[in-house]
Amino acid sequence: MLFAVRMDVDLPRDLAPAEREDLVARERAYSQELQRGGEWAHIWRIVGLYSNISIFDVDSNARLHEILSGLPLFPFLRIEVTPLTAHPSAIR
Amino acid sequence: MLFAVRMDVDLPRDLAPAEREDLVARERAYSQELQRGGEWAHIWRIVGLYSNISIFDVDSNARLHEILSGLPLFPFLRIEVTPLTAHPSAIR
Amino acid sequence: MLFAVRMDVDLPRDLAPAEREDLVARERAYSQELQRGGEWAHIWRIVGLYSNISIFDVDSNARLHEILSGLPLFPFLRIEVTPLTAHPSAIR
Amino acid sequence: MLFAVRMDVDLPRDLAPAEREDLVARERAYSQELQRGGEWAHIWRIVGLYSNISIFDVDSNARLHEILSGLPLFPFLRIEVTPLTAHPSAIR
Amino acid sequence: MLFAVRMDVDLPRDLAPAEREDLVARERAYSQELQRGGEWAHIWRIVGLYSNISIFDVDSNARLHEILSGLPLFPFLRIEVTPLTAHPSAIR
Amino acid sequence: MLFAVRMDVDLPRDLAPAEREDLVARERAYSQELQRGGEWAHIWRIVGLYSNISIFDVDSNARLHEILSGLPLFPFLRIEVTPLTAHPSAIR
Amino acid sequence: MLFAVRMDVDLPRDLAPAEREDLVARERAYSQELQRGGEWAHIWRIVGLYSNISIFDVDSNARLHEILSGLPLFPFLRIEVTPLTAHPSAIR
Amino acid sequence: MLFAVRMDVDLPRDLAPAEREDLVARERAYSQELQRGGEWAHIWRIVGLYSNISIFDVDSNARLHEILSGLPLFPFLRIEVTPLTAHPSAIR
Amino acid sequence: MLFAVRMDVDLPRDLAPAEREDLVARERAYSQELQRGGEWAHIWRIVGLYSNISIFDVDSNARLHEILSGLPLFPFLRIEVTPLTAHPSAIR
Amino acid sequence: MLFAVRMDVDLPRDLAPAEREDLVARERAYSQELQRGGEWAHIWRIVGLYSNISIFDVDSNARLHEILSGLPLFPFLRIEVTPLTAHPSAIR
Repeated sequence: MLFAVRMDVDLPRDLAPAEREDLVARERAYSQELQRGGEWAHIWRIVGLYSNISIFDVDSNARLHEILSGLPLFPFLRIEVTPLTAHPSAIR
Repeated sequence: MLFAVRMDVDLPRDLAPAEREDLVARERAYSQELQRGGEWAHIWRIVGLYSNISIFDVDSNARLHEILSGLPLFPFLRIEVTPLTAHPSAIR
Repeated sequence: MLFAVRMDVDLPRDLAPAEREDLVARERAYSQELQRGGEWAHIWRIVGLYSNISIFDVDSNARLHEILSGLPLFPFLRIEVTPLTAHPSAIR
Repeated sequence: MLFAVRMDVDLPRDLAPAEREDLVARERAYSQELQRGGEWAHIWRIVGLYSNISIFDVDSNARLHEILSGLPLFPFLRIEVTPLTAHPSAIR
Repeated sequence: MLFAVRMDVDLPRDLAPAEREDLVARERAYSQELQRGGEWAHIWRIVGLYSNISIFDVDSNARLHEILSGLPLFPFLRIEVTPLTAHPSAIR
Repeated sequence: MLFAVRMDVDLPRDLAPAEREDLVARERAYSQELQRGGEWAHIWRIVGLYSNISIFDVDSNARLHEILSGLPLFPFLRIEVTPLTAHPSAIR
Repeated sequence: MLFAVRMDVDLPRDLAPAEREDLVARERAYSQELQRGGEWAHIWRIVGLYSNISIFDVDSNARLHEILSGLPLFPFLRIEVTPLTAHPSAIR
Repeated sequence: MLFAVRMDVDLPRDLAPAEREDLVARERAYSQELQRGGEWAHIWRIVGLYSNISIFDVDSNARLHEILSGLPLFPFLRIEVTPLTAHPSAIR
Repeated sequence: MLFAVRMDVDLPRDLAPAEREDLVARERAYSQELQRGGEWAHIWRIVGLYSNISIFDVDSNARLHEILSGLPLFPFLRIEVTPLTAHPSAIR
Repeated sequence: MLFAVRMDVDLPRDLAPAEREDLVARERAYSQELQRGGEWAHIWRIVGLYSNISIFDVDSNARLHEILSGLPLFPFLRIEVTPLTAHPSAIR
């Protein structure tokens, strides 16, 4: 089941540099593990912003919430979730 | 070069059924040809709406405009274009 | 899988009364069949508006889209879909 | 009398962890007591957000305000209240 | 139980003058009967607009919906409902 | 001359409790004096919010500004002012 | 008593040219009479729009509503009213 | 050349009282000098807000920017600029 | 004096094809004459929309209004005007 | 390939003056180097705001993101990107 998710990151300015690096590194590892597992199907950077548009392919709403609320950057994200389904004109 | 494009369709109620069918059929053919050519990389239906989220992979802004303004449904679409680029955490 | 769906109805003024009655009657029958089947779990009227807030319990995004796009009033609805999941404080 | 209530939680980053845990625990207890009493009829988590959609069944506006303004997390909530009534198509 | 209700009127330009006069006359009679009965506690015109702000004092959400959806102008109104309760600083 | 005024209170979290109590007490006294004088004709709490809707009956715009800008909570309020006049359907 | 009023004109495309000319001529005469009387203190065109920003100097809210609702173009205007008062830094 | 400018002031709560007084005094002197010179043609307070609507009469966009960006309160202002021109119905 | 102007075109569907072609042809001629004269300094199409972003270089607000309100497509445009001035970092 | 980019600067009040000067100086140098290289084709100040509208001429979305995310002021900017293409009426 597919969902489009937009994430806008807003890291507080007073985050200690080490904490910031750690957060970003953990976010990357977390994302890449889910990409390898197939649930985080796509991730793209939005040009000019500290934001991404992602496609998730999960079994349920509950699983999507588990993934998103577990993001290391979750407290610093504005998240929009759009449920998707197959388009009748899609060839794949 | 990647772009996320959201299209919301608003067909006028007084469109003759034959014209409507023709428009939708031509839209589908147009989309599928571009999907086969690789420029229309993804198309998904948004659940509950007559709308789609698509990913285009084109050589230039000019080409994207040529594709979008050539859509048979173009006069009936609200379109939002978001330029994308590779995300540093993407594994592909 | 649960979804909150808000529907705002905007029937055109020039709809023939018979067509209008027919639409509303078919909408009701359609809704009640899905309520009896358990997929349309709740429907409430919003006070002062020709709108409802509903809860759907379906197996997939695809099924929710099938239900919503099949509504007899679909061409006259503004629809917002919000994916839900269990709340950790819920006792049921 | 039914009301839909959406609550978006925004806990300040500098809340002491113990205070935070205490607040969340008290919020849960408070909610569950009202759920058991039947006034807090439903609570669902919104996927991807620190937010809920709830249905309250109370005797009056005054009682709803008493409940909401008494929430331990009240100072950290954005709240939207939508009055509901029975829908003519509802089968229950 | 008190509610603030804002109504913005948008009468279609092609309404026949007789139908328009009839609608407005029936709206006035309807409003005045509810004012005399005490349920429509206040009604004020917003300066410069074809709009009003009203206060209703009713027994339930259901009754408020019955009143509002029964307004002769209902199909031509944009309505916003805000539930109210006693303010702790009020002297009356 | 009548005005509808909505006030949304946003007290900063780090306000000292004593200062907060003092502010709220002074706000109440200020409001009640104006209520007794007749200029602050109505005040209602909005359900679920730290907000009120009030009706002021004053001689001039200047007097209304004097009243509002003199509120002890003024620095912490978001205020919206809507000028009102008699409604032709009002019976009082 | 001063008010800033913004008016955005939206004349329907199918207005007969003679009716349109008549409306605009009557609007101008109406405005100029109020300008000469001093109640319509200023009127400026907004660059690039069929809109104006005006300053009214009237005795009451009721009088301002009488003026605005009497505008020949009233059915075709979007109007925003902002109550003003003397600024402490003004030298006049 | 005329411009309508709206300024909303948002002074930070932790501004030292002396600094605040000094800022406001300098703002007033700055404004009054430009009023005497004729470039700041009008300034009105918006009722209930720490905001003003002003009319500037300057030779160029560059001069208007010089004036606005030189305001002592500039870092604490939200500013909206609307270019104006003569209205065909104006009698002056 | 520079202004950024965004124009969104919304041609009514029932415009006769000949009238539409005539309008668009006159719009082009009008624009190109002003481009040759230097007042319409730039015009770009927004990708995916029937919209443009333009830069005008004119002597006054009055002249800009004369140009914009004289556009053959003016009745079908939504226009936003943003006054510009030299940027201190510009090298030209 | 052209893009319109709007940047709104919001420097935190507690930035040390030296750090602020350094940031602004580096921003200017960064911008001017890209202007000389031709990729930052235009930059204009928006009148009354700490904002600019710029035109970029770059080879790809990726290059635009590299430029924008490398801005010394990037953490303090709100950025909007609008892809552009040649307008059919442009004479250049």
